[in-house]
Amino acid sequence: MEKWRIISRRLLWQSPRIIPGTSPIPGFEGSIQRSGSKDNIGRAERNFENKKQNVETWSHPLRDSVGNLKKLPSRNLYKDHRIHCRSFASVAARVQRNPSFSTINSDDIAYFKEILGEKNVIQDEDRLLAANEDWQRKYKGSSKLLLQPRNTEEVSQILKYCDSRCLAVVPQGGNTGLVGGSVPVFDEVIVNVGSMNNIISFDEVSGILVCEAGCILENLDSFLVKQGFLMPLDLGAKGSCQIGGNVSTNAGGLHFVRYGSLHGNVLGLEAVLANGTVLDMLGTLRKDNTGYDLKQLFIGSEGSLGIVTKVSILTPPKLSSVNLAFLACKDYYSCQKLLVEARRKLGEVLSAFEFLDNQSMDLALTHLEGVRNPLPSSMYDFYVLIETTGSDESYNKEKLEAFLLGSMEGGLISDGVVAQDINQASSIWRIREGVPEALVRAGAVYKYDLSLPVEDMYSLVEEMRLRLGQSAKVLGYGHLGDGNLHLNISVPEYDDAVFAQIEPFVYEWTSKCRGSISAEHGLGLMKAYAIHYSKPPETVKLMASIKKLLDPSGILNPYKVLPHNVVSQA
Amino acid sequence: MEKWRIISRRLLWQSPRIIPGTSPIPGFEGSIQRSGSKDNIGRAERNFENKKQNVETWSHPLRDSVGNLKKLPSRNLYKDHRIHCRSFASVAARVQRNPSFSTINSDDIAYFKEILGEKNVIQDEDRLLAANEDWQRKYKGSSKLLLQPRNTEEVSQILKYCDSRCLAVVPQGGNTGLVGGSVPVFDEVIVNVGSMNNIISFDEVSGILVCEAGCILENLDSFLVKQGFLMPLDLGAKGSCQIGGNVSTNAGGLHFVRYGSLHGNVLGLEAVLANGTVLDMLGTLRKDNTGYDLKQLFIGSEGSLGIVTKVSILTPPKLSSVNLAFLACKDYYSCQKLLVEARRKLGEVLSAFEFLDNQSMDLALTHLEGVRNPLPSSMYDFYVLIETTGSDESYNKEKLEAFLLGSMEGGLISDGVVAQDINQASSIWRIREGVPEALVRAGAVYKYDLSLPVEDMYSLVEEMRLRLGQSAKVLGYGHLGDGNLHLNISVPEYDDAVFAQIEPFVYEWTSKCRGSISAEHGLGLMKAYAIHYSKPPETVKLMASIKKLLDPSGILNPYKVLPHNVVSQA
Repeated sequence: MEKWRIISRRLLWQSPRIIPGTSPIPGFEGSIQRSGSKDNIGRAERNFENKKQNVETWSHPLRDSVGNLKKLPSRNLYKDHRIHCRSFASVAARVQRNPSFSTINSDDIAYFKEILGEKNVIQDEDRLLAANEDWQRKYKGSSKLLLQPRNTEEVSQILKYCDSRCLAVVPQGGNTGLVGGSVPVFDEVIVNVGSMNNIISFDEVSGILVCEAGCILENLDSFLVKQGFLMPLDLGAKGSCQIGGNVSTNAGGLHFVRYGSLHGNVLGLEAVLANGTVLDMLGTLRKDNTGYDLKQLFIGSEGSLGIVTKVSILTPPKLSSVNLAFLACKDYYSCQKLLVEARRKLGEVLSAFEFLDNQSMDLALTHLEGVRNPLPSSMYDFYVLIETTGSDESYNKEKLEAFLLGSMEGGLISDGVVAQDINQASSIWRIREGVPEALVRAGAVYKYDLSLPVEDMYSLVEEMRLRLGQSAKVLGYGHLGDGNLHLNISVPEYDDAVFAQIEPFVYEWTSKCRGSISAEHGLGLMKAYAIHYSKPPETVKLMASIKKLLDPSGILNPYKVLPHNVVSQA
Repeated sequence: MEKWRIISRRLLWQSPRIIPGTSPIPGFEGSIQRSGSKDNIGRAERNFENKKQNVETWSHPLRDSVGNLKKLPSRNLYKDHRIHCRSFASVAARVQRNPSFSTINSDDIAYFKEILGEKNVIQDEDRLLAANEDWQRKYKGSSKLLLQPRNTEEVSQILKYCDSRCLAVVPQGGNTGLVGGSVPVFDEVIVNVGSMNNIISFDEVSGILVCEAGCILENLDSFLVKQGFLMPLDLGAKGSCQIGGNVSTNAGGLHFVRYGSLHGNVLGLEAVLANGTVLDMLGTLRKDNTGYDLKQLFIGSEGSLGIVTKVSILTPPKLSSVNLAFLACKDYYSCQKLLVEARRKLGEVLSAFEFLDNQSMDLALTHLEGVRNPLPSSMYDFYVLIETTGSDESYNKEKLEAFLLGSMEGGLISDGVVAQDINQASSIWRIREGVPEALVRAGAVYKYDLSLPVEDMYSLVEEMRLRLGQSAKVLGYGHLGDGNLHLNISVPEYDDAVFAQIEPFVYEWTSKCRGSISAEHGLGLMKAYAIHYSKPPETVKLMASIKKLLDPSGILNPYKVLPHNVVSQA
């Protein structure tokens, strides 16, 4: 009972005075900087204050603050560059340039200059270098041409021409993807829609926003907040990623557990097919049962079926009360059970349910500057973050606290704190969001983004640990509320023997559980060849037939999403 | 201020004693029966108590309580039968039997008996009569064969054979549709999946249910309630409709405003293509970004691309507190504004926002037995029902009441009551849900189910009123929260002159607003020809190409969804 009382006192502790330079979280020893550096200001602050976050954090490393491509930053951001080279090499080895594609000639350039104007036809080497490479510097193409259309008609003219000339095209938005989907593999023409960034309409009665594909997610959110709404998705990359790219990759993000999939929230799209046909599916209606819902095909097809040019999306009202708890659980079963209880008892206010294991916690505490353990009395096997969002501050706080007390009485929670202000919330989010950074600081890392049935999810981490023994640290963390595991294997340096122990085992294991080898990142170039681990041959074949139907010459984002041999046989 | 005080007293009135036979709603004069008859027990009761509702209400008139087809009931349910004949005739006039389809012969029958067994190959005239006709008795085909597969493999064998023989097929579930989508037009083979009604799995951690297509919606809901969850859709027809049909028609229903579209909630499907190929898209994952989301094509394609055989669906936790308010507004602008405020202030607990105009209210009061006006002091131009659902009874009640008081102070609400128990809630829902029945009792009715931008929605009602003058009563009611208007034109009897004033005006008007001519019912046979009012030619053409790709001989649900000439040209 003593323990329980200590915990309950902590849970119910009310708004302590925060003295700058001292710990904002009781139990912390000594002082704590708010996450140490500018780029540690995370989601919590955005949620609590809706301040414009520090541009350095989320901005595209290849673009300046107004979105123009800039010179490359130094590569010392990456402690070990070999993963990038090797990953790309292993994929490139599987892919050969499709010889049926033409190469750019001076007539092509002249034509594009005629329709787009001189300044939107870019051949400058520095700017091409930036557009050829993804932000992780993991994938690098060799395109000689970057086009910047300003409207749908120009996109249509570009594609019609490219299709007639059999010039391959890679659609590009904010270029923040993680699987090499938004950069050329060889010499594809880059079509960047970033100049198409107008908000077209917002209906404050229905909450429906219509905008062009190049609008940056954060800008849309800032616009909406002024109207009392918010975007139904929130990503780490929100300062750079564009809504057209979000839709094309079916981005998941941090509020998925609350607002669900873009397949539910996107109400309409305008997309341009490979032959230049403009498909107007830009409905602004919540309900429309007139024929096949074609827009769904373009959500998550990673630009391989058409270029999304406009988006209509349902936005939820912005609610005023956000609360965050950081909890310790004795085992994975307790985490699962806590999720079930949270769904039942927090129901309509639950907005995030994240977990990390003690290896992840340990790594964060060891490698992240200024991060302290909010529950320092001992280390636990699992930690859970629960965020609630509602329309009544005091009620929602009490509701969360009552839920937490009940869960402690039931033995599901071993220890916990509730953030009392934005600094505390920020510090807590920093732990969870900082794990990927800690991994990079710790050495080399093999990263997997998997969807698995919640009950099986952690078994993979445990099996991998047994399999690898002392040769690697195996970490599990992620979006428990969505069944999305980030499995990360940390090694001092890349080692083919370790890698051979991981793949294809991890994909085979995922496949046996009917899991997904890509929960939210897409397949892109990185995993196109591996689609069979998650999808049976009949469905992959049908995907290829649909690709063939919409893009007979295969000019749109070639080598991505589907294995080349399946597409060529369709 | 006097008025405000009276209203606020009413809104805050606490749980009056309900004496059987007396009015459960203060302000009612005299006694009130609970909606008069068994079939008036509506949604409110289901929500409040989750009792199994009276079978008579929602059951299929052509099936008995265990789902077997039964003899036809008498036709006197319909005061005027002419609309059924005429509607069908007008459509039939547009459609001719496709001569490329074969007709059934004795070899076919022998084959089906071999694979399905004697008793699942039905040629009995009475049973065929029931399966040939929709529940409204508006559409009637002349099929000579009803097949009842028991599993996916049998569906696959049936379709493979039919495709090879060029025998047209109509997939059928609960046959509760409103647009003639689930009955034959000519002599199509009826494939009824009602025998495939097993629950396959339920994961109480993730809330994911997997079941066969023939499961009745209400049975699934009853199963889930025992686990502390509920189906994310709720329809008047829930006692008969089947989940496969719900998915195939992208059913909307009463909780759409809260839980959203099946495009967001359905996580996976198994479907059989026309050639017998079984497409396993039966994921049970919240997130899966591996290739095109093919299942989306089958959601809302009305059985014309494949037969859905299994469904995986995300189910929300069942929350304990349901509250209902019945409110009067002085004008449509106030209704709209109230919706905006409700979204902001009730936010996470809002579960229904319905409206009806005074003509609808007047009709309900005049023609429905036992229905009384909860706000009898005067008639208002508009009435709104707001339902909230949350996890804390007293808080949610207070929250709703505080919102209502604030809205009255702001002038958005002119009068209102909050139901204090299930009887009151039932009586209130009876008004809104009884309008269609009142319309039938009042005479003949032209019915339209439209999606429109919320701000334009009521203008159509007003324009139609001006257009028709004294020749008809024009009513507007429906799901304001979803932008879904039920426009109903009540006339003493059907009149071609009146009809000519309505169509195509109503479709043209809807089209000009980029609305949908079918918000939630689908196109079926009734509106296949009219798809162009809601979809541009390029998208319709692409739909036809996809139909051709998946069903080259066009055997699946022919004459439905898409205009025949567009399909034949694809």
